[in-house]
Amino acid sequence: MAVIVQKYGGSSVADLEKIQNIAKRVIQTRENGNDVVVVLSAMAGETSRLIQMADSASGGAADGREYDVLVSSGEQVSISLLSIVLNGMGHKAMSLLGHQVKILTNKIYGNARILSIDTGLISDELKRGKIVVVAGFQGVDEDGNITTLGRGGSDTSAVAIAASLKADFCEIFTDVNGVYTTDPNLYSKARKLKKVSYDEMLSLAGAGAKVLHPRSVELAKAYGVPVYVRSSFSEDMGTLVTKEDKDMEREVVSGVAYDRDQAKITISHVPDKPGIAAKLFTPLSDHDIIVDMIIQNASSKGYTDLTFTVSQKDIGEAKRLLDAVAGDIGVSRIDYDENISKISVVGVGMQSHSGVASKMFAVFAEEGINILMISTSEIKISCVVAAKYTELAVRVLHDAFGLEQEN
Amino acid sequence: MAVIVQKYGGSSVADLEKIQNIAKRVIQTRENGNDVVVVLSAMAGETSRLIQMADSASGGAADGREYDVLVSSGEQVSISLLSIVLNGMGHKAMSLLGHQVKILTNKIYGNARILSIDTGLISDELKRGKIVVVAGFQGVDEDGNITTLGRGGSDTSAVAIAASLKADFCEIFTDVNGVYTTDPNLYSKARKLKKVSYDEMLSLAGAGAKVLHPRSVELAKAYGVPVYVRSSFSEDMGTLVTKEDKDMEREVVSGVAYDRDQAKITISHVPDKPGIAAKLFTPLSDHDIIVDMIIQNASSKGYTDLTFTVSQKDIGEAKRLLDAVAGDIGVSRIDYDENISKISVVGVGMQSHSGVASKMFAVFAEEGINILMISTSEIKISCVVAAKYTELAVRVLHDAFGLEQEN
Repeated sequence: MAVIVQKYGGSSVADLEKIQNIAKRVIQTRENGNDVVVVLSAMAGETSRLIQMADSASGGAADGREYDVLVSSGEQVSISLLSIVLNGMGHKAMSLLGHQVKILTNKIYGNARILSIDTGLISDELKRGKIVVVAGFQGVDEDGNITTLGRGGSDTSAVAIAASLKADFCEIFTDVNGVYTTDPNLYSKARKLKKVSYDEMLSLAGAGAKVLHPRSVELAKAYGVPVYVRSSFSEDMGTLVTKEDKDMEREVVSGVAYDRDQAKITISHVPDKPGIAAKLFTPLSDHDIIVDMIIQNASSKGYTDLTFTVSQKDIGEAKRLLDAVAGDIGVSRIDYDENISKISVVGVGMQSHSGVASKMFAVFAEEGINILMISTSEIKISCVVAAKYTELAVRVLHDAFGLEQEN
Repeated sequence: MAVIVQKYGGSSVADLEKIQNIAKRVIQTRENGNDVVVVLSAMAGETSRLIQMADSASGGAADGREYDVLVSSGEQVSISLLSIVLNGMGHKAMSLLGHQVKILTNKIYGNARILSIDTGLISDELKRGKIVVVAGFQGVDEDGNITTLGRGGSDTSAVAIAASLKADFCEIFTDVNGVYTTDPNLYSKARKLKKVSYDEMLSLAGAGAKVLHPRSVELAKAYGVPVYVRSSFSEDMGTLVTKEDKDMEREVVSGVAYDRDQAKITISHVPDKPGIAAKLFTPLSDHDIIVDMIIQNASSKGYTDLTFTVSQKDIGEAKRLLDAVAGDIGVSRIDYDENISKISVVGVGMQSHSGVASKMFAVFAEEGINILMISTSEIKISCVVAAKYTELAVRVLHDAFGLEQEN
């Protein structure tokens, strides 16, 4: 008998009919002889509605503790409804809130981190033959205050519970039926991957593939939890996210990702002295602005140019912060460009293949796509290009690396 | 410095504007130098919406434990929203759910009784200068399962918290501004009472005045908690519900109540033997059908007639249960009448005044209102009459006992 954690997102519990459908799937899994723990998000739109309420009530500055009490109420509705439906279908089911489990977190309201999960109650109820339905996205701090986990919270809850229970695997049911070589909405030749490694998944997710939140992938990698990304609306087995194996090495490139949400900032004529980079970036990190790519050109006559990218939503605040330090540092000019896109080629196999970068640059050159920035990691090469080239860049790379066919 | 518990019902927290209004009232009370504990219901309509969801998901037979998890989510929203608003207005406020307080109940889901309230956390937070906002209607059993208190639950929560904290008084804010001599919607000459005793309030509430649930009044009486019934939309001091005092004795009759929700059942030719009443009423009480008035006529030739009233919603089930035992007992006939109304005259003063009943009967006779049943208690006389006489009966009694003027 396997222990399986199944996580269903908001679109899978959007209404009673959908809840009844996932109840059937949960029961099928149970009747196949498995212990099942279900982790749920709030019904589609509910968390947004609650956040909207908090914002209206506070002009966007809600007290953190109370904000979490408010937004965590959505999962309470979905888990109890599914449990009612499962009990009505003749299967014993029991809902558990974060504090009932208990999922202990730190005290960072709105973006709490899980410290530990007490699996005692879940295990006891599984032994009694129950299906256990746990609220995703929420936990409790050591003083009994409700906390929420922030973006991707329910995926993180599911993987953390699977890790703590030493579950055989974790299934993440969503509205797509797996991880693709690229966004199928952008290129119809995109192919679903049967397997992808944790690191590839992280690169794909970090580069804009929104299937799984990086936090949950990192957690799955740390604890070696096999994760299936599946559609709640089909029987397709989806994509297995797991550790690297021999099979994977055959594919040099697994996918092409893009991210239109970046903005590029270029600071010209920066004095090339120790401490300058810290002066520029410390205020940004103090304000939780994530800087993605950073490029510094070779120094010329004691001065250099610095280019980096931030999320588009942060560009206004970044401008304010940089203007405040610019004079101090003696910077001559700062340019901002929001019309950019980051295109990434991802694959575990590229670690041992030198030709990927040169092929990528050659393909762009052929199509007349100018490369504005380049960054590389062991399993990813990213280029920033003008936003208007996004679709073209993805399609030509997908073709060039033969992603349409399985290798 | 007084400790005041303020309870606001669903209509008082129906939208953000109303929540902002009650926040101002809470702050005013705080700034007057009091410690304030606020108890809230869910936003108007929310609990009904959640119950509707539970019923749709289960065909009206939701698992009790899960039903309570679902319907208790409404208060979580209202308490966190008010706390967000209070914090936004510069006052430290903290919401507490039933399990956080903790409000310990028995395990009767949907209709749990409060066993004890731990006031430690509330007192600590009050000492830290906080306004404490507690979810009404909900508690937690000894195993950490969420329970709800059933009808009138939030009033009961408020009074129980006031009793446990030894609060100076409890204010119940609602959409009426006090307790009236009769329903102002039915008779425009109805007068608001400044004071009413617990027992009078119980008689008025039990007879159909829906201002306070009898459970909360009983609790207030048991612990001697002074309760103000006030409107959340005016500054009026409302009605004080308290123990009897000299002032009250002056008024012989305090009010006239009516209840259109009763149905009359007459069982004819019942063998007048021990055990028969038990055979008839035990199945009803086993099915939680509350029998209100019971009249048994004098026996004639070993047989008697038995008349009693039940709530109209229970009449179908009562029929089914009574038909099942009728043959067994040898009953010849059962009549049902739903077109009735119960009219009650209530007053602590009538204990020492013999003329109230005769005056009531005389007034009815004058107007040609036929009395179908009579029952009396120390502070109440109730008559069942045909439903069509409801308004007339209330108005002529109100006039006859001079309720328009303060005595």
